[in-house]
Amino acid sequence: MTPGFTGGTLDRADALRHDPVALAAKLDGNARVLALDGLMPEVTADGLLAWTSLAAVPEGAETILLGLDGAGRAHVVVVPPAGTEGTAPAMRSPALMAVLAALQPGEAATYAAARSLLDWHARHRFCARCGSTTHPFRAGWGRQCDACGTEHFPRVDPVVIMIAEHDGRALLGRGKGWPEGRYSALAGFLEPAESIEEAVAREIHEEAGVRVGNVRYVASQPWPFPSSLMIACIGEAEDDAITLDTNELEDAMWVPRDMVRAVLAGEPGPFLPPPPYAIAHTLLTVWANS
Amino acid sequence: MTPGFTGGTLDRADALRHDPVALAAKLDGNARVLALDGLMPEVTADGLLAWTSLAAVPEGAETILLGLDGAGRAHVVVVPPAGTEGTAPAMRSPALMAVLAALQPGEAATYAAARSLLDWHARHRFCARCGSTTHPFRAGWGRQCDACGTEHFPRVDPVVIMIAEHDGRALLGRGKGWPEGRYSALAGFLEPAESIEEAVAREIHEEAGVRVGNVRYVASQPWPFPSSLMIACIGEAEDDAITLDTNELEDAMWVPRDMVRAVLAGEPGPFLPPPPYAIAHTLLTVWANS
Repeated sequence: MTPGFTGGTLDRADALRHDPVALAAKLDGNARVLALDGLMPEVTADGLLAWTSLAAVPEGAETILLGLDGAGRAHVVVVPPAGTEGTAPAMRSPALMAVLAALQPGEAATYAAARSLLDWHARHRFCARCGSTTHPFRAGWGRQCDACGTEHFPRVDPVVIMIAEHDGRALLGRGKGWPEGRYSALAGFLEPAESIEEAVAREIHEEAGVRVGNVRYVASQPWPFPSSLMIACIGEAEDDAITLDTNELEDAMWVPRDMVRAVLAGEPGPFLPPPPYAIAHTLLTVWANS
Repeated sequence: MTPGFTGGTLDRADALRHDPVALAAKLDGNARVLALDGLMPEVTADGLLAWTSLAAVPEGAETILLGLDGAGRAHVVVVPPAGTEGTAPAMRSPALMAVLAALQPGEAATYAAARSLLDWHARHRFCARCGSTTHPFRAGWGRQCDACGTEHFPRVDPVVIMIAEHDGRALLGRGKGWPEGRYSALAGFLEPAESIEEAVAREIHEEAGVRVGNVRYVASQPWPFPSSLMIACIGEAEDDAITLDTNELEDAMWVPRDMVRAVLAGEPGPFLPPPPYAIAHTLLTVWANS
């Protein structure tokens, strides 16, 4: 099973980012520009991302090199001028998710890279160190301060997403405002100075009051809203008493393995499962079949 | 085996960060302030971090809540005023590492949190979105823009660190300027829109020209220079031909399992092993004994 937003086929061509001359030579008539309506991708009838040429790109526009295809053609996305980014769809609107679901495997990964980087550029036009303006460098994979020269690089925010298990049951929770009936794995941002295993234990304890040990890693995937790295794990609970943090969760419950397996197979049950492109779906599937 | 910079004993007390009144009540005569000389920790004869009281802290100083101890006492670190951070030791100087090695288990984790957050505050006094000044909020676990209100949170930068394995041998490399004879696992920053497994494969291919599959996760640890999350993995190489990226590596070689085990045990061999507090040491140990 390939987790959502993985399996991209472009070569990120790191060396080109450090070689402006070679990069410029690649930005020729063969180069392809990601077709976007705001942040919505345009999709062909074959389920591929649509691309245009550099001919339509305004002089001086900032471009980000997404990578090279097997034929060596550069694939780029254009950064909208400051102040014109406002047409983005909501963080992960149903409309966007429907479009992404129509894409062939791997295409969503290319969109994810474009999406994360566009968001980062829009929110990092100034130097966090001195407040001056910045300009893109390294083919769009960084920005440098015009005044103090500090180099800034795109963020990737690790998020732990996990179930506690106890006596053949998994701990699932539901956040506020989630679709009715939806339950999923708990999740939270990993903080500075903690390991993945420590973040898993801290988050489950904070949100549900459950202590876990023996944390094991299951899978990872990017989540480009705006730039998370989802790290899916399973921890063994010491006991099953739940103390809910109602600021974080609306409810939490223990669900037996058979029930999780049935719900994932589409049968009716006590909860609606996470969507297939979410790593929570991968995580529950792995656990249910273990 | 506990990886370096893990095992901290303070409760991060997330709820207090959202409750300024309760937080203020904790910042009383019992609160403890991390003793620092620049960024160097002061260490007691018992191998513990040294702490002082809030009495010595200037009025209006920015403090970061590191957490609560078992007695409920707040432990904080004071952010130096802008422009006075210049006394930091080099990124990870031998002197600092010697001090950290003298600490009891878990103490280095507390120092790591302080260190990562101090560095982040020093480099994020301005809003990356609009260039205005920012002020700390959430007990020092964020900064908010004074003009546009954008909230900024400390970065954690995921780094993949890995060995390729082939026919009972591990691929080790040495970076430029490393101590003579030192070889270790390859490593690199995970980029937006890639999974851990994809980042591992990309980095090994970029640096050594080796294609890997079947990537498996081994362990993680924080690395507070300034705020990395080290994610250690092993990948299976398709073949053993090395094509070195000399911009990244000075050399790379395949080392048989017996040889890695011997070097880790302190016997002479073809390379010097990574230090014990580095996750590369954990990774090589796990692989050598597998």
